Amino acid sequence: MRRQPSNPNPRTGELSLLRRIRAQAPHSAASGLRLGIGDDCALLGLRSGEEAAVTTDLSIAGRHFRLDWHSPETVGHRTLTRGLSDLAAMGARPIAAFISLGLPRELTFAKGRAKPWVERFYDGLLALAATHHTPLAGGDLAESPLALADIVLIGAVPRGQALLRSGARPGDRLYVTGALGGSAAGLELLGKLATNSCKTTPPALSAKQKKALWPHLAPEPRLPQGLWLRQHGAASAAIDLSDGLSTDLTHICEESHVAAEVDATALPLHAGSTMAHALHGGEDYELLFSATPTARVPRVIAGVPVTCIGRILRGRAGCPLITLLSENGPEPLSPQGWEHFS
Amino acid sequence: MRRQPSNPNPRTGELSLLRRIRAQAPHSAASGLRLGIGDDCALLGLRSGEEAAVTTDLSIAGRHFRLDWHSPETVGHRTLTRGLSDLAAMGARPIAAFISLGLPRELTFAKGRAKPWVERFYDGLLALAATHHTPLAGGDLAESPLALADIVLIGAVPRGQALLRSGARPGDRLYVTGALGGSAAGLELLGKLATNSCKTTPPALSAKQKKALWPHLAPEPRLPQGLWLRQHGAASAAIDLSDGLSTDLTHICEESHVAAEVDATALPLHAGSTMAHALHGGEDYELLFSATPTARVPRVIAGVPVTCIGRILRGRAGCPLITLLSENGPEPLSPQGWEHFS
Repeated sequence: MRRQPSNPNPRTGELSLLRRIRAQAPHSAASGLRLGIGDDCALLGLRSGEEAAVTTDLSIAGRHFRLDWHSPETVGHRTLTRGLSDLAAMGARPIAAFISLGLPRELTFAKGRAKPWVERFYDGLLALAATHHTPLAGGDLAESPLALADIVLIGAVPRGQALLRSGARPGDRLYVTGALGGSAAGLELLGKLATNSCKTTPPALSAKQKKALWPHLAPEPRLPQGLWLRQHGAASAAIDLSDGLSTDLTHICEESHVAAEVDATALPLHAGSTMAHALHGGEDYELLFSATPTARVPRVIAGVPVTCIGRILRGRAGCPLITLLSENGPEPLSPQGWEHFS
Repeated sequence: MRRQPSNPNPRTGELSLLRRIRAQAPHSAASGLRLGIGDDCALLGLRSGEEAAVTTDLSIAGRHFRLDWHSPETVGHRTLTRGLSDLAAMGARPIAAFISLGLPRELTFAKGRAKPWVERFYDGLLALAATHHTPLAGGDLAESPLALADIVLIGAVPRGQALLRSGARPGDRLYVTGALGGSAAGLELLGKLATNSCKTTPPALSAKQKKALWPHLAPEPRLPQGLWLRQHGAASAAIDLSDGLSTDLTHICEESHVAAEVDATALPLHAGSTMAHALHGGEDYELLFSATPTARVPRVIAGVPVTCIGRILRGRAGCPLITLLSENGPEPLSPQGWEHFS
């Protein structure tokens, strides 16, 4: 599909926006980025003995974020977190990010003196990118009736050393970083605030509300923790908690051909969150990993607490993949986290 | 944003679809793909002395394709062509493709005995992927009110040898592969056929119509030609003709800080296409490249004709970037191809 441009001067519009992004994006030869925005492809170099880790994550308005709930900076931050968190789960260091954006035309223009939505989106994304030394190396931009963002992250990891979902073995202990359920609890609160404000723009937040919503609005990818685990050979398998503990642990069990047992009383619940938030809420972007019983797993990695929450079992036909141990005794835990088309 | 699943059995839906794709996708250790679908990231290896080339391209229903004009196989083929063509323009060999899909729920289910839209999309994409030995290594899948596909291609190229947009120098000759305008002419014809059939599904095509529409429905990425140019050091700059000659040549001029002259009478027009189709139509996915006057550029590369269409000039302030030489004499040629938000 092609259309004739409605504007006789094509220097405005996409080209101009791309130029602004190009000037704003950090360039970092150190990461491995050799050629960024401005050619048919970006060019990236790996260090000797490294392989590339690649992940893509699609975020769609009304599904993964809401224009009337989330500020543009928040959407940018959360979009990049999704990608960086996948690198963290493999123990990879980021080399470069790419963002494909589909946006309604009105989100690309300034209203009065306010910055356009798209620029505030990049502000949020680029601030997190700078924190994690991740240059924005390209992407695509298209007009779309629906706002959407597809994030691509390229990372690097020494060959054969990536943390995989498939490495868990019976007898291994199960651990999580940080606290669980904070994102789902924050989303619930945000929904109430937005509904009460009845506006088409995100609600204004007090400092106290911002703090309560932080795990949902500004989740931190656990890159230093993933790197530590890989460098110390401490984890047998790992995944990031994007879809919820019940679903992500199922992925580990399926890929490792094992079962697992989770101790409900051991789960590090985030303040204000429920057991359901912690088990099925998703978007905490903490790391879930297994380690052999003899592995030395510290209680804190790079400033973030680590908690043992269960263990890996031999998988048996007819038995549940995951068993939840609570005060009511053992019960099967089925994946109830995020899944599309279910 | 999270939602509770409406289906109590999450093994159907996304997981099941991903499993089918995983089984169907070609695995190819030869290309460099070490770990494909099924973990947080895919893992890719480069050969010694290579760097990675990365490109992303977003296609949106109603903008880049139409569900009532294009068959699902065609959408899959064209989506992958967009990405492979960017690799061709750099002279890179493909390592792996990633596809993020947003689809309305009804496109993921079978209607009666017919295959679901999404499976036919993958049929079209995977057939072209097989032709170019490009394994599908991952992606994302989300429910979306609007059909959209973001394609990511990772390729490899010997370090420092990629064909860039920025290498054209005054005095260089300008060349294109194949014929121009066939895609835009085909799109016009397709629009007429679809409008006459008044259906919500793509029109049935006769063999003759299919042939006329071929450049639009099944464009071929010029990977062998890009590889040849790079391996023989024959091109000083290159780009693929995705947005139209007038726009893509502007990119070369801007990145190389030069101007250019195009001889209208030399343009290899595709049968049935007009000069406007050839200059501004886009989506031909031919290669546009420059070469020094002493470079040996054959008339045919890997079975595809190559035509000299003009030359590179010194850029001068106040003069047009591109001049079109026609029977009416010289006239400025401004970029009038595809640009969003213009």
